[in-house]
Amino acid sequence: MRATDGDARLGELHTPHGIVQTPAFMPVGTQGAVKAVRHLELEEAGAEIILANTYHLLLRPGDELIARRGGLHGFIGWARPILTDSGGFQVYSLAQRRVVTEEGADFQSHLDGTRYLLTPERATDVQARLGSDIAMVLDECLALPATRDEAAIAMARSVRWAERCRRRLLALRDGAVPDVRASNPGQAQFGVVQGGAFQDLRDESVDATVAIGFEGYAIGGLSVGEPVDQMYAVASATARRLPADRPRYLMGVGAPEDLVECVARGIDMFDCVLPTRNARNGQLFTSQGRINIKNVRYAEDDDPLDPQCGCYTCRHHSRAYLRHLYLAGEMTAAVLNTLHNLSFYLDSMRRIRDAIAFRTFATFRQEFLLSAGSAGTP
Amino acid sequence: MRATDGDARLGELHTPHGIVQTPAFMPVGTQGAVKAVRHLELEEAGAEIILANTYHLLLRPGDELIARRGGLHGFIGWARPILTDSGGFQVYSLAQRRVVTEEGADFQSHLDGTRYLLTPERATDVQARLGSDIAMVLDECLALPATRDEAAIAMARSVRWAERCRRRLLALRDGAVPDVRASNPGQAQFGVVQGGAFQDLRDESVDATVAIGFEGYAIGGLSVGEPVDQMYAVASATARRLPADRPRYLMGVGAPEDLVECVARGIDMFDCVLPTRNARNGQLFTSQGRINIKNVRYAEDDDPLDPQCGCYTCRHHSRAYLRHLYLAGEMTAAVLNTLHNLSFYLDSMRRIRDAIAFRTFATFRQEFLLSAGSAGTP
Repeated sequence: MRATDGDARLGELHTPHGIVQTPAFMPVGTQGAVKAVRHLELEEAGAEIILANTYHLLLRPGDELIARRGGLHGFIGWARPILTDSGGFQVYSLAQRRVVTEEGADFQSHLDGTRYLLTPERATDVQARLGSDIAMVLDECLALPATRDEAAIAMARSVRWAERCRRRLLALRDGAVPDVRASNPGQAQFGVVQGGAFQDLRDESVDATVAIGFEGYAIGGLSVGEPVDQMYAVASATARRLPADRPRYLMGVGAPEDLVECVARGIDMFDCVLPTRNARNGQLFTSQGRINIKNVRYAEDDDPLDPQCGCYTCRHHSRAYLRHLYLAGEMTAAVLNTLHNLSFYLDSMRRIRDAIAFRTFATFRQEFLLSAGSAGTP
Repeated sequence: MRATDGDARLGELHTPHGIVQTPAFMPVGTQGAVKAVRHLELEEAGAEIILANTYHLLLRPGDELIARRGGLHGFIGWARPILTDSGGFQVYSLAQRRVVTEEGADFQSHLDGTRYLLTPERATDVQARLGSDIAMVLDECLALPATRDEAAIAMARSVRWAERCRRRLLALRDGAVPDVRASNPGQAQFGVVQGGAFQDLRDESVDATVAIGFEGYAIGGLSVGEPVDQMYAVASATARRLPADRPRYLMGVGAPEDLVECVARGIDMFDCVLPTRNARNGQLFTSQGRINIKNVRYAEDDDPLDPQCGCYTCRHHSRAYLRHLYLAGEMTAAVLNTLHNLSFYLDSMRRIRDAIAFRTFATFRQEFLLSAGSAGTP
């Protein structure tokens, strides 16, 4: 940690492909591309790390094809850090005919019905072939609403799977798995804390996962429909129990105000499809709140989306033009809107880091929630 | 004309928004955006002028809304020259319940059924409001196959409409049409030569159109399904009859080899959706011919699309990655493919201009047809 301000932490994450300043937001590059934009724009917007989805890449084009290309960095032409998830969440949310046993998750591809068995070992191997800088352990996702017993059983299984993932990674590092071509020898592995909304289960999960020992720790199973106050409470209590010297990653979160609120609770890393997906749906995040660009009030509005924003879209185009492109169904609307939303997210992270460095985070947080965190115009 | 080499001409087109080097290719920005790319990329690829479609902009967002924004340049944020067509071709190819009389074309919007009457005067007014640098006269498009009589009738009407368009433009320039807010006082107007495949009708059309007097002349009604040799023959004979000191624009053409062949026949300007539309369909133009990126032969091909090309896509990405993005349905595939195809077209035009300047166009033409003009790989 370079500095703290309350529970908010300023840090650096060292990876084989460079350093990531934390708190960090990771744009989601599901299939090896952040939808609608080029890597160059991501870099210019300040993305220091992106996330790619193991499930999607395993199905298409396949982890072995990517390993033959030298790994994901070379294949997609992105030289900065990459984090891959374990594939577990998409198996849970996308795959068909899923059967989860102690061995792993048996499922059919949502693309063509091909059967796969994703075990903790295979999830580790696939990510080793992809060669991401940070790999995640396979965990069991919980169907909601869940009873305490269901949450406890899934959490306990996730801990056993985490042990298997770690053992496999160590074997890979030792060169003891000759048929797996690891593309990135310096790959780190993060454990995932589960336990639903039950803080005693979360505590148990933290202790067991930390006992295994990982380079960082994620909090999973949040932002899946629970009330936001519950999410904040679990994130806060869980973060507090995690080791102070390891990065803390809150998976799948969130809205701009969630980032600020969870940094305030000791979180260092985030990923979310919100800025990219909402951009494609015409919902834009600004320093004055959200804008729905479809709204007729923007038809003759010559102002930029966000007068405070220095992104390409705000420097070159008006709301009236962006509304026209959106209504006309032009792909360029997705390009320009995605650029803006990602710039807004990445700028917000930069401002968060500055505020922690100057120990003005409390003031920043208050002002941010009043403006950017507001509902904005419909 | 700055130079000639055979019938090929090197020139400059002066407009209120700057100079266009000819022979020039104009990327098509149908609704005020070239699909999938930003203006910045167009400029970087060397686009000195783009085309926008009057029909689409008239229907949505409307020419009056654009005039209130100060014209198309301001509305879309593009500072270089723009050419607008008259809307006639889309009325013919897209609109519903079309009735064409001497007055003009009565039609219903393909979007919502709204009735419009596009007269020569209105086509001129709409383009004056859009404020393009080059406006086109309204002509009557011919349903194919056409008899000589049908072609003669449509051609004669197009001449009468051209007279009305010119008269209207001169009235607009004189400030005699107070209810039309012209966004670009220096707007030029091009006549359009019609006459189908009948060279005597083409000759008659040239003479009548030139007698009216325009800043430039287009050849319309080609590249609509006729054999390519017929297209070349009509382009050639028609170009030869046009005044040497005015730009000659072959509308809607064409494939890379068509550009070279028609420059060889005295054409100065082109527009076509081929590079952008084919990019979105995975067909890519390269110095070795066409590539269909879907082909399984590219699945593990780590080479760039075109080793001769210096575009962003070729500098950063492999065929294997581009194939993956295309098959995965990623929007970024359209972005990267469009960038490449437009770069290939605009680079080809640059090479054409250099060849004319150095009087090596005949050699260039031969080599180009053997390589880039070849069918390539499926």
